[in-house]
Amino acid sequence: MAVSTPTVVSICAAAQEASRVLARLPTETKDAALHAMADALLEREEEILEANARDMEAGREAGLSSALLDRLELDSARLAGIAADVRKITELVDPVGEVIDERTLENGLEIERVRFPLGVVAVVYEARPNVTIDCTALCLKSGNAIVLRGSSSAAHSNAVLARVAGDAVESAGIPSGAVALVSGGGRGDLPELAQQEEYLDLIIPRGGGGLKATLKEHATVPVLYAAAGNCHLFVDASADLDMAVSIAHNAKVQRPGVCNSIETLLVHSAVAEEYLPRVFEALRADGVELRGDERVRAVDGDVLEAAEEDWSTEYHDLILAVRVVDSAEEAIDHVNHFSSGHSEAIVTGDDAVARDFTDLVDAAAVYVNASTRFTDGAVFGMGAEIGNSTQKLHARGPIALRELCTYKYVGRGTGQIR
Amino acid sequence: MAVSTPTVVSICAAAQEASRVLARLPTETKDAALHAMADALLEREEEILEANARDMEAGREAGLSSALLDRLELDSARLAGIAADVRKITELVDPVGEVIDERTLENGLEIERVRFPLGVVAVVYEARPNVTIDCTALCLKSGNAIVLRGSSSAAHSNAVLARVAGDAVESAGIPSGAVALVSGGGRGDLPELAQQEEYLDLIIPRGGGGLKATLKEHATVPVLYAAAGNCHLFVDASADLDMAVSIAHNAKVQRPGVCNSIETLLVHSAVAEEYLPRVFEALRADGVELRGDERVRAVDGDVLEAAEEDWSTEYHDLILAVRVVDSAEEAIDHVNHFSSGHSEAIVTGDDAVARDFTDLVDAAAVYVNASTRFTDGAVFGMGAEIGNSTQKLHARGPIALRELCTYKYVGRGTGQIR
Repeated sequence: MAVSTPTVVSICAAAQEASRVLARLPTETKDAALHAMADALLEREEEILEANARDMEAGREAGLSSALLDRLELDSARLAGIAADVRKITELVDPVGEVIDERTLENGLEIERVRFPLGVVAVVYEARPNVTIDCTALCLKSGNAIVLRGSSSAAHSNAVLARVAGDAVESAGIPSGAVALVSGGGRGDLPELAQQEEYLDLIIPRGGGGLKATLKEHATVPVLYAAAGNCHLFVDASADLDMAVSIAHNAKVQRPGVCNSIETLLVHSAVAEEYLPRVFEALRADGVELRGDERVRAVDGDVLEAAEEDWSTEYHDLILAVRVVDSAEEAIDHVNHFSSGHSEAIVTGDDAVARDFTDLVDAAAVYVNASTRFTDGAVFGMGAEIGNSTQKLHARGPIALRELCTYKYVGRGTGQIR
Repeated sequence: MAVSTPTVVSICAAAQEASRVLARLPTETKDAALHAMADALLEREEEILEANARDMEAGREAGLSSALLDRLELDSARLAGIAADVRKITELVDPVGEVIDERTLENGLEIERVRFPLGVVAVVYEARPNVTIDCTALCLKSGNAIVLRGSSSAAHSNAVLARVAGDAVESAGIPSGAVALVSGGGRGDLPELAQQEEYLDLIIPRGGGGLKATLKEHATVPVLYAAAGNCHLFVDASADLDMAVSIAHNAKVQRPGVCNSIETLLVHSAVAEEYLPRVFEALRADGVELRGDERVRAVDGDVLEAAEEDWSTEYHDLILAVRVVDSAEEAIDHVNHFSSGHSEAIVTGDDAVARDFTDLVDAAAVYVNASTRFTDGAVFGMGAEIGNSTQKLHARGPIALRELCTYKYVGRGTGQIR
């Protein structure tokens, strides 16, 4: 059953109240709360794993795939990892109060542009319960209250994790409303949550197309779409083919379930006959299923026939769509048509083609002669991330502490008028 | 009649085509186009003023207010001013290609965060025809195509100005689709425009509540709300009252029609009896109508009675709402409840109160002991502005060249894999 109206509203209102306190907290207080949270995760391991076992059991009964069950599962080691990640966030620079620019007008008026928290951030996510803690820690460090809305499949795990986080936050003197969980079943409560524009400053969805469609239809709160990743690798005519085999293999196989792995390989026709057999051998050795267009299948008849929807599918699995193109331009057009705007790569020896690719491909991250797998807040030096934005506005790519902030112009004068 | 479907779509599609060329143009080409535009504004003065005269005549017949007619009117001097403003934009630093951050990973992969144009920006605006040129110039300089949607009251002026701009752009070798005008009557075409998410990257509305409501209801394209300005001045118990009279007078009277003028004056009860007669005298000398709550009217019985809606009204006129409050906290609550998030000011001698105000007031610009009238792209050193954002995401305050850009992470490697 969906959570009833007053509950969602009152949770969001309490989060806003708490956010006003949070916004002004010294860094030490926030870091103390994060350490308390990490401690509690370890101290309350039994309680957490018990709740998780209930979700796992229900998931098995409901016939969840092994990939989903793996995402859902917690154990001692994973919990210790989550706690360690929380402590890492205490080491990051507090973005709040950072003066981005400053200038003094001729009349003496001093104007600073200062980073401030957004206020209340809602995170809507699917199976992984670790998101409950990761996102809470990032929001607290950036001075934001958080409203969590997990999936019903992780309801018990999320409930206990949110309680652990909330208790830790309270023990550090932060109002408990700063961490709230809205745990409705199904999507019934999502439209309601997405319309709390009086209280929420941002919604970050981490999930698939259905979630995005629901928010597109209902949200009046600003949304920062994260996590969709239909990523491509284009092997240009001038590519170093050894490098192209290594990058394609890495970008597909190293961790196929994540957003910055590739789903489609585009190959220039000038090198297709030489390159395809080599890359296919490497991919098949790791069990990758290949789906290709006619020209790919002319080179290798064992490749399955790709359907039109393959070009827009995020497999998140050991499956790769492959297409032959006749120019970098055609590759760029394909990418811009099908890409979700996450991470795109080219292997090329031609600087002009590389420049065309990086200029014209419309994505958060574009790589020349490197794997798409590097798009990540930690790799980019931002510490950790709450997701990866595939939009152009506000934040693109990893959403980390600074991206969870807005700014304000603060003018300090002595009576200046215009 | 509303513009029919294929026309809005085809205009937006052509703008996107043009945007891909624009995004890669060297600064000199863009500046040449801007100079050609400024030249054409002067050379084609007769044609422009003739079209404007038709709008003015229709406006008089339709009974537009003198304030609206004044906004609509063009003459030689105003045209020269618009042309001069266009030339000023050529002097601004081109934001495109600017490297915001860079880092080299241990494996040698170089990652830059680079500023890129958004793509296609739609500007929806009301009576002032100068917006047609100002916004076009800013979009071109920042490498964006623009789709303009003016009001029917300025249809003739906007049509000729957009033509002048389009011709100038073409003469500099830029595709004409880079500057397009959608000129439907009424609001019929606005929902359609606001849903061209395949082609438009951003909509900037410059107008009142009706426009905002229409976009809130229909827009699937991201919107950056600009221009609403229900601004306040709070005179604290510790204020220098001479300064407070001067700032209140300036913020209300110097240019009442603009967004950063104040609409409400909040006065601490401890100084109300001393301050109100003095500020009222100064305001009345310039014809300001005063509307107050009971406590204000107890001090000055000639003040009209303020209704509840006065607190949320942007008069944009010589009218001021006045309220007595008992604390800075009460003032901040009033501001956060009624403010449109544009510009807010306090006069105080108390640093702690000043800090509370700047920390807690949720607005693009907050001033201590200065007039609200300083919120402006040119004053803030950004050259010019396309509007003032009252949102927290992407850009807050003046929307200038950088704010019309997004960024991309560009990774350059030599075969790095993860």
